[in-house]
Amino acid sequence: MMASSDKVLAASRRVVLTALAVFPFLAAPALAQTPATDPLPSWNDTATKTAIIAFVERVTKQGSLDLVPAAERIATFDNDGTLWAEQPIYFQVQFAIDRVKALAPQHPEWKTKQPFKALLEGDTKTMAALGEKGLLPIIAATHAGMTVDDFTRTVRDWLGTARHPRFNRPYTDLVYQPMLELLASMRANGFKTFIVSGGGIEFMRPWTEKTYGIPPEQVVGSSGITKWQMAADGKPSLLKLSKIEFIDDGPGKPVGINRFIGRRPVFAFGNSDGDQQMLEWTAAGAGARFMGIVHHDDAEREWAYDRKSHVGRLDKAWDEAVKRGWALTSMKRDWKKVFAFEQ
Amino acid sequence: MMASSDKVLAASRRVVLTALAVFPFLAAPALAQTPATDPLPSWNDTATKTAIIAFVERVTKQGSLDLVPAAERIATFDNDGTLWAEQPIYFQVQFAIDRVKALAPQHPEWKTKQPFKALLEGDTKTMAALGEKGLLPIIAATHAGMTVDDFTRTVRDWLGTARHPRFNRPYTDLVYQPMLELLASMRANGFKTFIVSGGGIEFMRPWTEKTYGIPPEQVVGSSGITKWQMAADGKPSLLKLSKIEFIDDGPGKPVGINRFIGRRPVFAFGNSDGDQQMLEWTAAGAGARFMGIVHHDDAEREWAYDRKSHVGRLDKAWDEAVKRGWALTSMKRDWKKVFAFEQ
Repeated sequence: MMASSDKVLAASRRVVLTALAVFPFLAAPALAQTPATDPLPSWNDTATKTAIIAFVERVTKQGSLDLVPAAERIATFDNDGTLWAEQPIYFQVQFAIDRVKALAPQHPEWKTKQPFKALLEGDTKTMAALGEKGLLPIIAATHAGMTVDDFTRTVRDWLGTARHPRFNRPYTDLVYQPMLELLASMRANGFKTFIVSGGGIEFMRPWTEKTYGIPPEQVVGSSGITKWQMAADGKPSLLKLSKIEFIDDGPGKPVGINRFIGRRPVFAFGNSDGDQQMLEWTAAGAGARFMGIVHHDDAEREWAYDRKSHVGRLDKAWDEAVKRGWALTSMKRDWKKVFAFEQ
Repeated sequence: MMASSDKVLAASRRVVLTALAVFPFLAAPALAQTPATDPLPSWNDTATKTAIIAFVERVTKQGSLDLVPAAERIATFDNDGTLWAEQPIYFQVQFAIDRVKALAPQHPEWKTKQPFKALLEGDTKTMAALGEKGLLPIIAATHAGMTVDDFTRTVRDWLGTARHPRFNRPYTDLVYQPMLELLASMRANGFKTFIVSGGGIEFMRPWTEKTYGIPPEQVVGSSGITKWQMAADGKPSLLKLSKIEFIDDGPGKPVGINRFIGRRPVFAFGNSDGDQQMLEWTAAGAGARFMGIVHHDDAEREWAYDRKSHVGRLDKAWDEAVKRGWALTSMKRDWKKVFAFEQ
């Protein structure tokens, strides 16, 4: 027998349910206006898309044996070559080159000092020969000796004016449309999306929220030491020093994940050997896992490179992906569209 | 004139609104079952509580000139002495002491080697004289030379068995009930709550989610270097080394906030001089800010200490708080209840 209050509840529920049945758009106006759509429209209906959708369902569907609690839904994404392009050189390196050119008038000594001399003369052969280590003074000169706030402004100014040499568009236009959809879809399924990149943490944070929907606290990257300083007028600031603190690449990626996130990802996407350990770390956890690799095999719409590339080399991680059945994603085959600006 | 579809919409809205007017509990069943309650019931109705509530309303109410967008609602909390007790010694130090005792049979050399000798003999005078630096070998012996996963288990095991000497309760019972309510209330108002503690990041993460509702990725703390290693069987792990990586205390707190969060807090709570720079960094941002300090002035329910305390000294930060009008929170006056277990 129903208590009196239960009867009122049942009756009133009927009234509302009847109203909702007659005018169903009242129940969920947003959905009614936008009919249920493919969450990944820029992905072709190939095995990769099917695998992604099946995995997400498997770890999020109530009653699934592989259900992952919402708090543990961590998805990590490399940035360069995974979320945006990285050719002909990493965009952060282009930023540094542009900064050296802008700062050169204040540094006459750079005309005779490597690596600045080679850079200012456009001597790419010498620059390539200097290697990553030889180019560190450029990073130091362009990424240190200023406050974090000032550096942030410099990055934003550059993104607002610089244009990619091939596409003649802002660098942030070179984000991959299929990956934007994947990020949004993961979040819609309760995942927290993180960037875990070899790039500079303070180079990424000024724009990742607007571009990817990833807030600064979900960006993991390489960093230099910063130092607290208090000015005479009582205004504090954080000074960027030229000493490297952490390289978030290769074996550094699981270390960075542990330090910043403190939880192992269940889903990870990369594109190069620098992502191998992040993918291994993800794969080694208990329960269902998804490991994906973007393969740049589309010279027409983007670029084609892998085992022998200087930038974003995909060699050892390719072999491991094949061996372990990670989702090798072909740009050419799996992506209907690479960039949003494509016709 | 209304279009036909608008008329349908208006009519159906009336039906639903009528139903909701008659049976208002249908509109918000959760609220109807729990009548609107004080979000901070363990706080007395003093100036501090009023200031907290006024601040939160000021930065979250639509139309407020000081509205802070949801993404920028960052609140940071020190841990030791702010969220849980820290007397008679930091609980992490007690953990280290207990671990040394547990490991001593495997280390006969500790019987004659400082600081282990003093610790094992209960020679607190010598230990105090050794100071923080002299005690580092204890941290190294108990916090390094194992994987992160193994360390996590050790922390959980200890919390499950160790008892606080004064209250004879698990250490996690010594969290402050008013601060638990404050954390929950901030989150209910769209804030992301972070711990920013001088304590070890990996000592806190195993329990902060359950105890405070703060997930590992929102815990900032001191850390040692960790190293990626791949075993012969293909199983990767992260090894904790005895080298210190980062001390998240004093001027390290704004550095840690910048590194881990990348966004300046609008609300911060601490209790000691180690929190001074975090509070200054918070205060120096643009727009409305809230800076709070817990003052331990309740020897009966908790402890009473400030300027001259060895643990959690509150001296310079006290003077600054008075000068700048930060919210000095008296345990005795402002907290109705300190611990949940109080009668």
